[in-house]
Amino acid sequence: MTAPVYQWQPTTAQIAGRAGIAPEQVIRFDHNTSPTRPEWVAEIAAPLASTLNEYPGADYRPLREAIAGYAGVDPDRVVAGAGADELIGLSAQAFLPPGGVAVSASPTYALYAVATVQRDAKLVEVFRPAPDFGLPLPELLDAAQGADLIWLCVPNNPTGNRDRDEELEALLAVAGGVVVLDAAYAEFAGDRWAPWVDRHPNLVVLGTLSKAFSLAGIRVGYSLSTPELAAALDRRRPPGSISTLSAAIAEEALRHPERARATVAALHAERDRLAAALSSLGWTVAPSVANFLLAEVGPSARTLAEGLMWEEGMVARSYAEGSPLHHFLRFTVRSPEEDDRLVSTLRRRL
Amino acid sequence: MTAPVYQWQPTTAQIAGRAGIAPEQVIRFDHNTSPTRPEWVAEIAAPLASTLNEYPGADYRPLREAIAGYAGVDPDRVVAGAGADELIGLSAQAFLPPGGVAVSASPTYALYAVATVQRDAKLVEVFRPAPDFGLPLPELLDAAQGADLIWLCVPNNPTGNRDRDEELEALLAVAGGVVVLDAAYAEFAGDRWAPWVDRHPNLVVLGTLSKAFSLAGIRVGYSLSTPELAAALDRRRPPGSISTLSAAIAEEALRHPERARATVAALHAERDRLAAALSSLGWTVAPSVANFLLAEVGPSARTLAEGLMWEEGMVARSYAEGSPLHHFLRFTVRSPEEDDRLVSTLRRRL
Repeated sequence: MTAPVYQWQPTTAQIAGRAGIAPEQVIRFDHNTSPTRPEWVAEIAAPLASTLNEYPGADYRPLREAIAGYAGVDPDRVVAGAGADELIGLSAQAFLPPGGVAVSASPTYALYAVATVQRDAKLVEVFRPAPDFGLPLPELLDAAQGADLIWLCVPNNPTGNRDRDEELEALLAVAGGVVVLDAAYAEFAGDRWAPWVDRHPNLVVLGTLSKAFSLAGIRVGYSLSTPELAAALDRRRPPGSISTLSAAIAEEALRHPERARATVAALHAERDRLAAALSSLGWTVAPSVANFLLAEVGPSARTLAEGLMWEEGMVARSYAEGSPLHHFLRFTVRSPEEDDRLVSTLRRRL
Repeated sequence: MTAPVYQWQPTTAQIAGRAGIAPEQVIRFDHNTSPTRPEWVAEIAAPLASTLNEYPGADYRPLREAIAGYAGVDPDRVVAGAGADELIGLSAQAFLPPGGVAVSASPTYALYAVATVQRDAKLVEVFRPAPDFGLPLPELLDAAQGADLIWLCVPNNPTGNRDRDEELEALLAVAGGVVVLDAAYAEFAGDRWAPWVDRHPNLVVLGTLSKAFSLAGIRVGYSLSTPELAAALDRRRPPGSISTLSAAIAEEALRHPERARATVAALHAERDRLAAALSSLGWTVAPSVANFLLAEVGPSARTLAEGLMWEEGMVARSYAEGSPLHHFLRFTVRSPEEDDRLVSTLRRRL
């Protein structure tokens, strides 16, 4: 029994060691996280210390209520998990039988393929064509009709574009199985998925605290769906994958979405500035509605990323030989200072 | 597709609501957690707040090193997870093919059956006979020969006894598949499993921070095994199921095992005191090497537990009709004050 491995980027500690710098000096342009540091969390965490000898409440009711309030749905439509990643695994377990068929629109988030193959199921990939990476709709609709599960990332990682509502409606109308719509970057696109979940009994929307909420380190994500699909996911959930601290921090963050909104506004402006700077290097930068930019760098992309990582401590997302994105690099939009350092370093190395 | 549901006890919030008391007044005698409140965690958590916008390092290397140092093995023999529960699920995924066969010695931890059936595999249960709940060895060895995976809890939850080394050696010698030995309560029995993991290529030992380390709320557990079995589990692991805070808290706890040792010493003395008190109620209390006690209460067990929970806010573990333990209750050993309140309340209600 072998399964595809989720290919992790080198850790910050590994890069710092090899680059001969302190871990704090490494800048991750590859994780699509937010540069906003959630200092406010200290106040939440400290008073909870004395409760950590006990388990979190297994139904995570307060967390699910906070998610429901933020998303605008009833709590029985919400399942909370250890990052959207756990919900991806649970979706595969719940909706994809061994020997079943899943569909994805590639290039997209790598974990969908891993979750599919771990389920001993088959993945049918349809390919988003460059330079716009829009959905190949007729091909997708054709594949979706016979599939148990369709994975779709909206806005799409790593291309940064957002599929159109009409396309998504068409997909949901013909899909024979469940459509898992990973909305990890929804806040950057201004998307609200609650009305869709009300309308479509075959839709599971995934959300996360890791992106616009600046809380990748707490590992909290969620799903929105009909109560029936939520129950199917909940049945497969281990009883306590989210720590007491993470649940409380997520609740506080979701009750104060103004923090995330401020982060999104700042990153919108900064994204346009970084896109212009990367274009000025002679690269084609794909239009993005998210907090990252995909740039066509050319045949030197991978070598450039390796040097940037191991010699400068700046990590871009690169793509292995054989990938349709082998000539591309993906950059997370970070703070103006960090982005300036990136661009000047790139300019020096080109 | 339906799967057995892990039967959660009511949450503290639900019990408090119905009992008309504050959540802090509910006492959980059902979770086998520790009464020691880890106040020291506050110091660890606060300075990490400003790093939570980034993901934890996906290899959890510092955490795995801390586990390895505590357990006395090399880090490549360690996989860390969101509680031992995540490792139970990963073990089923890695070692139990769909249609395969797992064996357990019941009564035991309920999650083994759930993980087995979620894998579309078959569970063969052999039964530990009352009153001692020892292993039915010939029957177990017979079942183990044809099985892909054997689940064993040592010391066993909920019976509190520990299977003998010779029995475990015999099982490991004949087992055709992998033996997952859940050592969640190892510290209470003084067990050290590192030498076994060196000797047995088909053994996966599970450990947790939820019991003797008094940190159920952080959701950190681990496995010890050969590097080959560790790699098989690691391949199926989602990239980040443990929060940055939980990893750091676990590292600190594992580097200071004297705290856990003090908790274990206190609970040993208190266990004997509580056992004597429960016996004085006329109940037969099974000998326990762990931090909980299984008492034969009689036909009124379930009713007693319901009244205790909903009217007094004290939660014992009870067993549904049809369970061989339907006449039993399991009590976690807690602080002397909490245990005294339990016993006097039981005396009043009997």
